Amino acid sequence: MATLATTTAIESPSGRANPSAAPNGKGTQKTQSTANSSTKRIRDTKYRHVFATHAEPKTSCLSHDADHTPSFVGFRNLMILVLIVSNLRLMIVNFRKYGVLICIRCHDYRRQDVVYGLLLYLLVPCHLFVAYLIELAAAWQAKNALARMKKAGEDTDTPMEMAAARKSFNATWHVVALCHGVNATLNLIIATKVVYYDIHHPGIGTLCEFHAVIMWLKSCSYAFTNRDLRHALLHPNHSEPLPELYATCPYPRNINWRNLVYFWWAPTLVYQPMYPRTSHIHWGMVFKHMLEVACLSIVIWIASAQYAAPLLQNSLDKISTLDLVSIAERVMKLSTISLFCWLCGFFALFQSALNALAEVTRFADREFYGDWWNVHSIRTYWTTWNKPVTHFMRRHVYAPLVGRGCPPALAQIIVFVLSGLLHELLVGVPTHNILGVAFAGMMLQIPLIALTDALQTMKGIRGKVAGNIIFWVSFCLVGQPLAALLYFFAWQAKYGSVSRRFDASPAAQFFRR
Amino acid sequence: MATLATTTAIESPSGRANPSAAPNGKGTQKTQSTANSSTKRIRDTKYRHVFATHAEPKTSCLSHDADHTPSFVGFRNLMILVLIVSNLRLMIVNFRKYGVLICIRCHDYRRQDVVYGLLLYLLVPCHLFVAYLIELAAAWQAKNALARMKKAGEDTDTPMEMAAARKSFNATWHVVALCHGVNATLNLIIATKVVYYDIHHPGIGTLCEFHAVIMWLKSCSYAFTNRDLRHALLHPNHSEPLPELYATCPYPRNINWRNLVYFWWAPTLVYQPMYPRTSHIHWGMVFKHMLEVACLSIVIWIASAQYAAPLLQNSLDKISTLDLVSIAERVMKLSTISLFCWLCGFFALFQSALNALAEVTRFADREFYGDWWNVHSIRTYWTTWNKPVTHFMRRHVYAPLVGRGCPPALAQIIVFVLSGLLHELLVGVPTHNILGVAFAGMMLQIPLIALTDALQTMKGIRGKVAGNIIFWVSFCLVGQPLAALLYFFAWQAKYGSVSRRFDASPAAQFFRR
Repeated sequence: MATLATTTAIESPSGRANPSAAPNGKGTQKTQSTANSSTKRIRDTKYRHVFATHAEPKTSCLSHDADHTPSFVGFRNLMILVLIVSNLRLMIVNFRKYGVLICIRCHDYRRQDVVYGLLLYLLVPCHLFVAYLIELAAAWQAKNALARMKKAGEDTDTPMEMAAARKSFNATWHVVALCHGVNATLNLIIATKVVYYDIHHPGIGTLCEFHAVIMWLKSCSYAFTNRDLRHALLHPNHSEPLPELYATCPYPRNINWRNLVYFWWAPTLVYQPMYPRTSHIHWGMVFKHMLEVACLSIVIWIASAQYAAPLLQNSLDKISTLDLVSIAERVMKLSTISLFCWLCGFFALFQSALNALAEVTRFADREFYGDWWNVHSIRTYWTTWNKPVTHFMRRHVYAPLVGRGCPPALAQIIVFVLSGLLHELLVGVPTHNILGVAFAGMMLQIPLIALTDALQTMKGIRGKVAGNIIFWVSFCLVGQPLAALLYFFAWQAKYGSVSRRFDASPAAQFFRR
Repeated sequence: MATLATTTAIESPSGRANPSAAPNGKGTQKTQSTANSSTKRIRDTKYRHVFATHAEPKTSCLSHDADHTPSFVGFRNLMILVLIVSNLRLMIVNFRKYGVLICIRCHDYRRQDVVYGLLLYLLVPCHLFVAYLIELAAAWQAKNALARMKKAGEDTDTPMEMAAARKSFNATWHVVALCHGVNATLNLIIATKVVYYDIHHPGIGTLCEFHAVIMWLKSCSYAFTNRDLRHALLHPNHSEPLPELYATCPYPRNINWRNLVYFWWAPTLVYQPMYPRTSHIHWGMVFKHMLEVACLSIVIWIASAQYAAPLLQNSLDKISTLDLVSIAERVMKLSTISLFCWLCGFFALFQSALNALAEVTRFADREFYGDWWNVHSIRTYWTTWNKPVTHFMRRHVYAPLVGRGCPPALAQIIVFVLSGLLHELLVGVPTHNILGVAFAGMMLQIPLIALTDALQTMKGIRGKVAGNIIFWVSFCLVGQPLAALLYFFAWQAKYGSVSRRFDASPAAQFFRR
């Protein structure tokens, strides 16, 4: 529709005489006095039709030779608006097509799943307590060794005694490490076996597997940290100074029941004898964060049940006939919903839940994530979005590997391989399909990191923007929706409608192998 | 899909000892030397598992008590990406559903439309030349009057002679004004009658009507400006100084053939004896701007034919049964396409076409629009997006009205009424449906201006953002698509499928009244 701009108020042009200056300035910070003076000026002027509107050369603000580049902040508002409107429209279409799909009572889970889930919930933390018992024994042995050393004389610096001490320490550590290894591995194996074979519901399975992996990482950190603390105790003259923070709780005083329970609940995967703490608990903040978690969980549930579920269901026959254009179309549509759910889930877990937990445990280091949405390189994304795991990998995998002489690049690849295995465990096991897609997705990050790192060497802002775009594309279009689609299809091929309707399709056969 | 963050490179934590500092800093401005030193530091450290990862209190960057508010520039990139992807998806769906709808040969227009269009194209500028002839006569009369005055003596300042001079000027002006009025009105009436009754094709009709309105505005400006210049000539002692720019071409020297032809083609609606000019023509820029116009026109044509046309067609039965939710859904879908076409059209006309014309005519004032996309108030939008018409309305309607004692607010309303009438002329006449929707849309701007002006008195940024959002909502959702839908439906009710298929529907009957 063609429109003609017509009105009266505009900034005062820089002409000599300005009989047509309007009562209100451009910025609309008008005052009655300027309005009156402007009107008076017009009335005092005799020749209103001769004013030189075009008095001097000016440029169009979108031209390359413009005097100043205009702001485009209005287009940002427009984008937000278009996104809201176009998704509201899709919600109307969805409602017209499917009605309300959300239903609390129809939720289908087996009694056995809940029973096994609760059993795992009680069993998994026991492994952390077994690790505590192992450390208790090791600490007792260390105290005895220290007492013997003191008896033998203050000076243990002769080379022979040094070698004997190292030998004794290593012998103990091998036994302790074996015990920790068996304990931690048993934790993962038992949880994985139960989730894979006995818990049908993927949601309950995911929670159990997550819990087991978190406890596994905590057990490992507890064992590794106490090993180094014990070594420092037994070699007081050779050790570097320990962090000052630990001074109030030296080894082996930290091996106690209260300290372990604190580490069990603290929002970190990295064990320290002491953490920075806040002075008191703001229960109002705890309540606010819990409310956020509850609301966001409901929002995610509605988005999945009402929007993602029919979309995934619709795409089954497209995947089974390998109709690539339609699969691309489905992935594109799914990407908005999966992105929305992911952002809500990120906020609920890393901002709301972890902050609530930190508030209750008076844990003062709340940096659970950085501003990963601005990253220019995939590398920075993986170090920013999930700081608890990053901290674990850095302290207990990367640094020890590099310290032992492993090249940093290889150490990074090893970290990604380990991370990929954990991802596959967390996604493949609860969905009963070890497809390797999650693992492959993590491995794919390595060339992407090389690519975005190379882009950062470009001058100016372009390389940064390109890096950010590559991150979002790989994250929104490949990472989330494609993987969700593949695991959903594999699930359906194994249990759901696909196995009955598309028994003969090549894709279904591939996934059922 | 749950993901675990794992990698190695991160900014160096501010701990005392940092055995696990990774080879690359956060900003990835890594150098080989820092990477090496960092690896060496890890290798020199003995206790890699005891490093105090959590050494000091930190905040989550999304919390209210965060040390610094993070940038959200990454989400801007994400929004652009989501918009592109979701519209690409709609293009895939559209192609699957309709195939290619673009067809050059199928374009349907009558021979009569083209003939009448060409006739109007030749006839309409003639009215500008009639205005020139009228002014030529008036200038001749003024020169004679001046000569008589000089003969009678230099001093014409006695009250009686002043009154006689004013009387003589006014008598001449009444005749001149009548001639101009008849000429300009005839222009509009003839063009409107031919477009409404004889040109069926709305595209050809719109072009003709636009041309007629532009020439009408130019004729008016030519008449008004020369009236004031003539008055200044005849009352040399009482007149205020004229703009310096006009000094090189004083009245009546400006009433000449060359001057008129320049005004005919200059990209302005406001007549001045002289304009700021550039020194020479950059033909490269002209070519570039013309190419932009061509490409954007093709893009708009494709968007209309492939995406808007089936959408409008689909919504016909929704409108005829007054299914309000579906109409809202159609308007929402149409809003993106109409917005896209409008933005392309704006750029093609106000940036590319007017700049090309300005380059060819060496017209130096290229400020054809401001940064209207950032406006906080609807008032500023109407004074910013179309400067040529704003200049006309300010100089020839608003300022004279206020100068004659009309209250500024009333003068503004009069400007909007005039603008609304012109809008209705430009939309209603070529579509052969004087619905009054375009006029009502312009009138609706007045309360919106009051609302957004009131918002600007709010402190801080909120009122500004709210004003911008209100602008975009009224512009994207009500202004463009709803009006397009209504005029399309009215067209179809009169000529197209609706009249046959939905003869009895209340909406069709309403529009056919």
